[in-house]
Amino acid sequence: MNSKLGLLEPLESVSMTDRVENILREYFTENAFKPGDALPNELEIAQKLNVSRNVVREALSRLRMLGMVEARPRRGMIMSQPDLLAGIEKVLNPFILSQSNQKDIFELRLILEMGIAEFLFARKTQKDLDELEQIVEKQKTLPVLSKEDEIEFHGKLYDMTGNETFQRFQSLLFPVFEHVFASMTNQKDNYVLVDPVSHADLFNILKDGTPEAFRKAMHKHLEVYYNTIKK
Amino acid sequence: MNSKLGLLEPLESVSMTDRVENILREYFTENAFKPGDALPNELEIAQKLNVSRNVVREALSRLRMLGMVEARPRRGMIMSQPDLLAGIEKVLNPFILSQSNQKDIFELRLILEMGIAEFLFARKTQKDLDELEQIVEKQKTLPVLSKEDEIEFHGKLYDMTGNETFQRFQSLLFPVFEHVFASMTNQKDNYVLVDPVSHADLFNILKDGTPEAFRKAMHKHLEVYYNTIKK
Repeated sequence: MNSKLGLLEPLESVSMTDRVENILREYFTENAFKPGDALPNELEIAQKLNVSRNVVREALSRLRMLGMVEARPRRGMIMSQPDLLAGIEKVLNPFILSQSNQKDIFELRLILEMGIAEFLFARKTQKDLDELEQIVEKQKTLPVLSKEDEIEFHGKLYDMTGNETFQRFQSLLFPVFEHVFASMTNQKDNYVLVDPVSHADLFNILKDGTPEAFRKAMHKHLEVYYNTIKK
Repeated sequence: MNSKLGLLEPLESVSMTDRVENILREYFTENAFKPGDALPNELEIAQKLNVSRNVVREALSRLRMLGMVEARPRRGMIMSQPDLLAGIEKVLNPFILSQSNQKDIFELRLILEMGIAEFLFARKTQKDLDELEQIVEKQKTLPVLSKEDEIEFHGKLYDMTGNETFQRFQSLLFPVFEHVFASMTNQKDNYVLVDPVSHADLFNILKDGTPEAFRKAMHKHLEVYYNTIKK
């Protein structure tokens, strides 16, 4: 390889890997590959697509990161059940996310928080309510709620939706949410002082009220955040 | 390399790549790398971590897929603004997602749909309402709404939230939503026949009503889906 080709390589190998990755994903979908199905090996793929093994290895490594394929020693690669949120989890770094993405994430948490009422009422159990009541009783004795207290209460609500993906997604969004809100205002204390609906109020409505009343109360509870979306 | 080491390589290189990928992401976060910042090159990283260049190349290729780093010809790798939803977009293949993930996605769409009312009312413009009215008027003349008609109406609502990430996320979920619902029931026709709140009703509330009334109507509109979450 001469030095001119050497210089060109990075650009070429980016788009080649992207292409092979896309081709492989389409191939899997079109041929209805299911978890456990054996995949052609690296060499076969490289020959078929007429690309280098390095490119195929990189593309397969990406799919392995997403949990889409799995390497089994002596058995080669097999199709696998992907981790739905693996990709998003890896990029939630406030230093590199665009301002607009961060604002979107802030709002997404609010959207989700208002959307769960039906699920909470459809799926609440006495055990859940007992656990939530314990959290609320403990928090009543505190002069001010910390971030951890907030996460404990809202996290229990996420848990009660019975939707693991939602639960994990919402937990992933939380640090970015805090980061965005902190950058909007330094009046942290206000948040606590003006909170017109407490966790205990929300608990009581969840216990004996309706989804509509719960949503109304949740909206009041999150009012300081909702005020930021008006424009 | 003897054949014994050759056999062991796949397992070793999986975990090595995972480790290098994690180390790099932590390194970027801890050192507050920002988009545009130059990264150490492949060889430097390999020497520093005492791993093969192939492993580093694979790890960097994964980060490139997430949009986190970028290769610039002659300038090496730089930090970049990731695509928040790239990872999730790539794995939304109904053949390989677990049943439980698919059910979660189905529900997630419902949670999101109920959570956007505040944003719609805070951000609606006359232009948006005019466009939505056109969609609704056109749909009034149809005997039955197709999947595309549904996407057109609800997609316009997503658009009106002013939240691009939500908009794209919700659109990504739609095919899985349809897939799950189709597998739950074959009584497609019922959906149209019993729909007690039409798109036109939703439009009228969005135009002159309140977020609370809109959410109540949306819940009715999606009742056939909500009935699946009771248990």
